[in-house]
Amino acid sequence: MAMLRLDMSMSLDGYVAGPNPSMEHPLGEGGEQLHQWAFAVAAWRERHGLSGGDRNPDSEVVDESVRDLGATIMGRSMFSGGHGSWASDPNANGWWGDDPPFHHPVFVLTHHARAPLPMQGGTTFTFVTDGPLAALEQARAAAGDKDVAIGGGANLVQQYLAAGLLDELQIHHVPVLLGGGTPLFANLDPGKVRFERGRVAESPTGVVHVKYRVLK
Amino acid sequence: MAMLRLDMSMSLDGYVAGPNPSMEHPLGEGGEQLHQWAFAVAAWRERHGLSGGDRNPDSEVVDESVRDLGATIMGRSMFSGGHGSWASDPNANGWWGDDPPFHHPVFVLTHHARAPLPMQGGTTFTFVTDGPLAALEQARAAAGDKDVAIGGGANLVQQYLAAGLLDELQIHHVPVLLGGGTPLFANLDPGKVRFERGRVAESPTGVVHVKYRVLK
Repeated sequence: MAMLRLDMSMSLDGYVAGPNPSMEHPLGEGGEQLHQWAFAVAAWRERHGLSGGDRNPDSEVVDESVRDLGATIMGRSMFSGGHGSWASDPNANGWWGDDPPFHHPVFVLTHHARAPLPMQGGTTFTFVTDGPLAALEQARAAAGDKDVAIGGGANLVQQYLAAGLLDELQIHHVPVLLGGGTPLFANLDPGKVRFERGRVAESPTGVVHVKYRVLK
Repeated sequence: MAMLRLDMSMSLDGYVAGPNPSMEHPLGEGGEQLHQWAFAVAAWRERHGLSGGDRNPDSEVVDESVRDLGATIMGRSMFSGGHGSWASDPNANGWWGDDPPFHHPVFVLTHHARAPLPMQGGTTFTFVTDGPLAALEQARAAAGDKDVAIGGGANLVQQYLAAGLLDELQIHHVPVLLGGGTPLFANLDPGKVRFERGRVAESPTGVVHVKYRVLK
């Protein structure tokens, strides 16, 4: 059975974005440190149309993660970049460029109805106005027998987690502190969200990639 | 050179104790889940005068951690148990019993001057009223060429970390959520506290034991 999955880089103090996001720091202050491991690997660069990059355990983790993915769900601010001056323009084309790195259907939760937006390289953004469950249904249909990923942000993750719909998380534990920002785990009842730890992969870059199955 | 070290079990949402600590829940609601892995292992049980227990990667981690330890520093509430009715009695003997599990000198930071308290099994509690630096000096002298551990709580850890005195942390990442409580990393300037990840040990119990060297 295809899974609903999440891949998320998290600081040692539990944040997935730093404090005070702005045009200058779209991932919050210090937030870019969470993603440096991914920027460097071949598998990530390839999906973003870049050549080169490291082939190491980090790269294998990215390969493994994207291999069986057939669709992605994301929140409105992850589509638009959230903090750009054009973020308030409901017709802006997001911050993912002409050839977004997904290469599969992406479902964007929003309050603004809008026609689907086909991009280069196999990505089509479809805008869903009737909530997370509807987005999941559409994403599953589009993904066929492949998995669906939640792209973020944290609030959307929490909604799927609280609803018991998430099957597996992979947290990329990055050994930095952000001191504030967006916590991955908030607004959850800890008695109702339980995990079983799965595969652990460590990397020379310092990141520890850990899978957690959500117990139902 | 002997190190100042910390071993701490932390939830996936970054807490080292749960919310609302009480007589019934001295580690906060759900907090005991952080320590179940340790309670089960032979190396921990032995130090606590108990027989049996598992011999597994968790046990090796405990063995490794205590092998080179010569002294421990702890805060007043960790000595007294914090939330017992006798916690307000400055002459109480703490909650560690007659034969505490340390088996080496322990330095307790407190505002109440008090004569040293020798216990069975090699533990002596020495009460230090002139601050964390003085406690560290006394602990280093007592430990000789062995390491000094910070026993806790989180506030004391943060003081040593902020002062650049901590050399190594080992975090036992436990795959549970507590939803609130005492965060390990707070009151710190993220730009001034930087880590280099070291050894990763995974366990069948679900815990991931990760060492982090503090960069100076």
